[in-house]
Amino acid sequence: MKALVYHGPGEKSWEDMPDPQLRDARDAIVQVDAVTICGTDLHILKGDVPTVEPGRILGHEAVGRVVETGAGVDGPTPGDRVVVSCISGCGRCRYCRHGSYGQCLHGGGWVLGHRIDGVQAEYVRVPYADGSLHRLPESVPDQSAVLLADILPTSYEVGVLNGRVTPGDTVVIVGAGPIGLAAVLTARLYSPARIIVIDPAAPRRDAAKQLGADVTLSPNEQPDVFVNETTDGLGADVVMEAVGVPETFELCARMVRPGGHLANIGVHGAPATLHLEDLWIRNLTITTGLVDTFSTPTLLAMLTHGQLDPAPLVTHQFPLHDMLAAYDVFSRAAETGALKVLLTRS
Amino acid sequence: MKALVYHGPGEKSWEDMPDPQLRDARDAIVQVDAVTICGTDLHILKGDVPTVEPGRILGHEAVGRVVETGAGVDGPTPGDRVVVSCISGCGRCRYCRHGSYGQCLHGGGWVLGHRIDGVQAEYVRVPYADGSLHRLPESVPDQSAVLLADILPTSYEVGVLNGRVTPGDTVVIVGAGPIGLAAVLTARLYSPARIIVIDPAAPRRDAAKQLGADVTLSPNEQPDVFVNETTDGLGADVVMEAVGVPETFELCARMVRPGGHLANIGVHGAPATLHLEDLWIRNLTITTGLVDTFSTPTLLAMLTHGQLDPAPLVTHQFPLHDMLAAYDVFSRAAETGALKVLLTRS
Amino acid sequence: MKALVYHGPGEKSWEDMPDPQLRDARDAIVQVDAVTICGTDLHILKGDVPTVEPGRILGHEAVGRVVETGAGVDGPTPGDRVVVSCISGCGRCRYCRHGSYGQCLHGGGWVLGHRIDGVQAEYVRVPYADGSLHRLPESVPDQSAVLLADILPTSYEVGVLNGRVTPGDTVVIVGAGPIGLAAVLTARLYSPARIIVIDPAAPRRDAAKQLGADVTLSPNEQPDVFVNETTDGLGADVVMEAVGVPETFELCARMVRPGGHLANIGVHGAPATLHLEDLWIRNLTITTGLVDTFSTPTLLAMLTHGQLDPAPLVTHQFPLHDMLAAYDVFSRAAETGALKVLLTRS
Amino acid sequence: MKALVYHGPGEKSWEDMPDPQLRDARDAIVQVDAVTICGTDLHILKGDVPTVEPGRILGHEAVGRVVETGAGVDGPTPGDRVVVSCISGCGRCRYCRHGSYGQCLHGGGWVLGHRIDGVQAEYVRVPYADGSLHRLPESVPDQSAVLLADILPTSYEVGVLNGRVTPGDTVVIVGAGPIGLAAVLTARLYSPARIIVIDPAAPRRDAAKQLGADVTLSPNEQPDVFVNETTDGLGADVVMEAVGVPETFELCARMVRPGGHLANIGVHGAPATLHLEDLWIRNLTITTGLVDTFSTPTLLAMLTHGQLDPAPLVTHQFPLHDMLAAYDVFSRAAETGALKVLLTRS
Repeated sequence: MKALVYHGPGEKSWEDMPDPQLRDARDAIVQVDAVTICGTDLHILKGDVPTVEPGRILGHEAVGRVVETGAGVDGPTPGDRVVVSCISGCGRCRYCRHGSYGQCLHGGGWVLGHRIDGVQAEYVRVPYADGSLHRLPESVPDQSAVLLADILPTSYEVGVLNGRVTPGDTVVIVGAGPIGLAAVLTARLYSPARIIVIDPAAPRRDAAKQLGADVTLSPNEQPDVFVNETTDGLGADVVMEAVGVPETFELCARMVRPGGHLANIGVHGAPATLHLEDLWIRNLTITTGLVDTFSTPTLLAMLTHGQLDPAPLVTHQFPLHDMLAAYDVFSRAAETGALKVLLTRS
Repeated sequence: MKALVYHGPGEKSWEDMPDPQLRDARDAIVQVDAVTICGTDLHILKGDVPTVEPGRILGHEAVGRVVETGAGVDGPTPGDRVVVSCISGCGRCRYCRHGSYGQCLHGGGWVLGHRIDGVQAEYVRVPYADGSLHRLPESVPDQSAVLLADILPTSYEVGVLNGRVTPGDTVVIVGAGPIGLAAVLTARLYSPARIIVIDPAAPRRDAAKQLGADVTLSPNEQPDVFVNETTDGLGADVVMEAVGVPETFELCARMVRPGGHLANIGVHGAPATLHLEDLWIRNLTITTGLVDTFSTPTLLAMLTHGQLDPAPLVTHQFPLHDMLAAYDVFSRAAETGALKVLLTRS
Repeated sequence: MKALVYHGPGEKSWEDMPDPQLRDARDAIVQVDAVTICGTDLHILKGDVPTVEPGRILGHEAVGRVVETGAGVDGPTPGDRVVVSCISGCGRCRYCRHGSYGQCLHGGGWVLGHRIDGVQAEYVRVPYADGSLHRLPESVPDQSAVLLADILPTSYEVGVLNGRVTPGDTVVIVGAGPIGLAAVLTARLYSPARIIVIDPAAPRRDAAKQLGADVTLSPNEQPDVFVNETTDGLGADVVMEAVGVPETFELCARMVRPGGHLANIGVHGAPATLHLEDLWIRNLTITTGLVDTFSTPTLLAMLTHGQLDPAPLVTHQFPLHDMLAAYDVFSRAAETGALKVLLTRS
Repeated sequence: MKALVYHGPGEKSWEDMPDPQLRDARDAIVQVDAVTICGTDLHILKGDVPTVEPGRILGHEAVGRVVETGAGVDGPTPGDRVVVSCISGCGRCRYCRHGSYGQCLHGGGWVLGHRIDGVQAEYVRVPYADGSLHRLPESVPDQSAVLLADILPTSYEVGVLNGRVTPGDTVVIVGAGPIGLAAVLTARLYSPARIIVIDPAAPRRDAAKQLGADVTLSPNEQPDVFVNETTDGLGADVVMEAVGVPETFELCARMVRPGGHLANIGVHGAPATLHLEDLWIRNLTITTGLVDTFSTPTLLAMLTHGQLDPAPLVTHQFPLHDMLAAYDVFSRAAETGALKVLLTRS
């Protein structure tokens, strides 16, 4: 089969690889119908994620058809159309027993396209298939379903639920990339009074408006002053960090009210400064997190009922075999306006 | 092998049965080292649980050694000493994903000794073995470990956690059978100010005192008046029902304070009257529940660390082959003083 | 001044009464601008609430202007336009300290039009004015603001929050009177997938649709069968009782799924049967409650931001002095189609 | 009257000051029977808290007798023996309505000995007296009661409750000063499996053992390695920071397990480094907080019932007029072994 293979920092190719085989009774083999590229894949390609070894097939967000299952797989059966979740969980460790699959102690967590071969390929082996594959109704198109693999549950669990968005809240989201935009979409499920989105790129601010932001600001428009004024000097109830650099995290910490929540969603590569000399007295709750995907079935039901429409997040489409072109467009997002790029088999 | 078989209302025997075999990739076969009898087994024998068919081996609380596992079992391996939980869970349905294994939609929940053959036998087939079997350290004796199969998690989850016992609370437990007594033991983990236990049998009240009750009362000592007086007319913060008849449930509802919790643990066979004309205004929370066993690993760790000592709950011991004698003693508890009876292989 | 006075079962009049005076340092006197009638007032008039003594001025939902405040009142000042909450709280007892003002131990709770004179009058004395009066922005009209006194916080706290409505849920609301309809409106803040409303009156079912119900059913259309089918046999995540009779409560208990919530909002005059023989095993949470009004500031902010529009709940308007005519229309709701009737001063 | 007056950095005196007078209807005047000194008072004396103006009477922890109350005070009456809480709350702002009195928006929060004159004096004016004064039963001695003013609720709310200590947990407390030791005492209410305390001073480690720590370590004994090993490489469930310097905060962040809680109790004067490059993926919850004192009535009940014995925390006693000697002993704690020093009137 063909697959996108990482060959060390800066090196990748779309090349022939052996078809994956079942290795464990709880594995499944899935033929990939649709797949997307994550910002994390770009980080890997820069060499920022040393746990990814050269020779690894990348990708952790896909929709496909089950072609084979191990003897210990109860749920998915060959022929099922499924979303392949970015997270796998053993189901029996102390984390999995509480739905915290992202922290699985027995070889689960984020493994696809990281510690084992991923989904940017024609076929993929999925471990712990019972928990990782979610059967899709035909009414949910690939374009929406593929966003269930990572960005919808990530923004919902790590942003909206960790941040405890509540009706009537003022919510600030810093960063309007795919994750920040998905946070706008899913935060609205809890009817905040206002969603304020901060991003330097005008097209991303426009996308935020389209998905439900009430106010959008550029970082150079003194967003902390705006938030302060619009909340009678208190600060926002919930602030989400969806960029992953120290400056934005520190901006977030300045915008949250006493008793409020700062939910970090961004993937960070460097430490931030935590101004405890100001914050110790403010009853703050700061959360971090990798997605656990416990919410995937709920989000899938909301897609099915038409409660969520994430389709505007997909800006470009390619045939699967144009993987390198898709990477090119996605990696030049500032220029191309790319949010999520979709690659499809047929 | 030998096993205790139900042959319809009033009929049971200790008889030869075929050894169990693996049927599913996620099954395990366990050789039973220690087993006990539950009040529910007596209900089954009276014919109160029509879902149990004649020919069924009873029992859902055991400790044993794994002798064989299916291809889809990751955790337990042959030779492991394990507790066999009363609850099995598929791990992938909407209930199991939230740790609510007792409500499993794919053939789990309470099945052992109910819908499939149980543990009052020399060997047992355990479905969904990864979640149902918990490896035991050698330091935890059978006598304590067997109580992890049902009564410790039941009293803790359905009584203490559902009832939201909090430091400083006044807690009332109605019924001092094994479950009520285990509730005394596990309620103390949350440092209530007072535990008041109500039971007609003096030996059970004594056992409650030994396990940590501060006050014990007979039902004919006007316990509701006592609770009212001792709480300045408000009522108890948490009341647990651990009997299973309408009168005790209604007594519980009279003893709980506005804003308090009534946690039903008892297995009921008849409806109760809910005095909504008094209760609608009192901000009450009433919970019911079958155990989910999500707490079993935590309780096991507490046994291992010596934080819980449930040994006084076992009052009688028998060799496994004296199963009928054990049933006789257990079924005449008022006379024999039996709480839990332990049957062991060697 | 003129006021609506209860003179024992079946007897009321709109008559001259002395103007109220400050009695306690934390009292305020409010001139009533707009007031409404509650189903509870009809219960009082039938003699169902014996704690209401003859000679009592009725009413607990009003909007007005502060005319005088005691020395211990910090917040409201003369001239402020305020909503008069149905609940007063001392702010210092164990209940008030947790925001459970409805259960106040020091003469608070529901007292207006119950244990002290109420708001169906030209003036009213409001105890514990700091917590009971909420300053209104001019942009919120009386017609909406008066619903903040009782039905919006009641439906939100006792129905939606106690019932723990969550995005994607199936919610059933039994009873489409003003409270049930307000529950439809406020449940939508949590983005349930479906709201199913059950009521025998077609105009009320229409109102429910208008306020956001997805499906409406008459009780004789086998709603429990419908709910069962539409939830794959599981039952609804949340069921709210908004009628107050045993039959509807028991219907609710049949429609809630294992692990679900039954939130009772209805005011009951008779006991219901609780089928514990079925429910003990279903991990149910049943809540009851008088409103605490901790959510009133949040709901007011949502009215101000235009997040909630309860105006359709007011079906009839009268001058304040036509109080008896308003009672007549409200008490014949089946005939007149009355939901809330509004009486205004000018 | 005599009082301890701050006269700018490094300057204090025990001098004559005018007796306090009622200023607001909700004030009370309290005659001080017993008072203590807080580490925060030493910070003020160093000039670290610029909001404290010269001429201010210090102190925010006292027990005394009410001598006069304003017209708007309902609870305390002259003659009552009370604890004076370090926190005052208006009871009506959005924070006070949720029990978050420490964040009061109307002149409450921590004001005594900070923005208004404090309790290190013969008499003190206490604002919002209804919420700030808690009547004491005679059975609770001054020595215990004075710890209710600050350190018991602070350690319980900001450490134990924010940290969500749960039965069976591994808890690490960094810092064994009075607050850290009070955290040991109150953490035990939730039955953790292990409490590990880290402090450089051997006498403080001994005090920690006496109050219930299972293991104590000096910071130079590689506590993070120990915690790692004792938790199978995962880290502690809950880590509390009770020192207030960047190094200890960063040590805490290294010792908490994925999914665990880091509860900051320490008062910080400098920023810390937050290693988001490691922590973003670990599902951490970090909390900060000033005490709200919502738990004071509960803690008082526990003192009354003998559930908590904080007496060992008081190491030195002085007559009230030896205030300067008490400050001297307290400020040389490393040398004198002082934890809390008690000054009493008689």
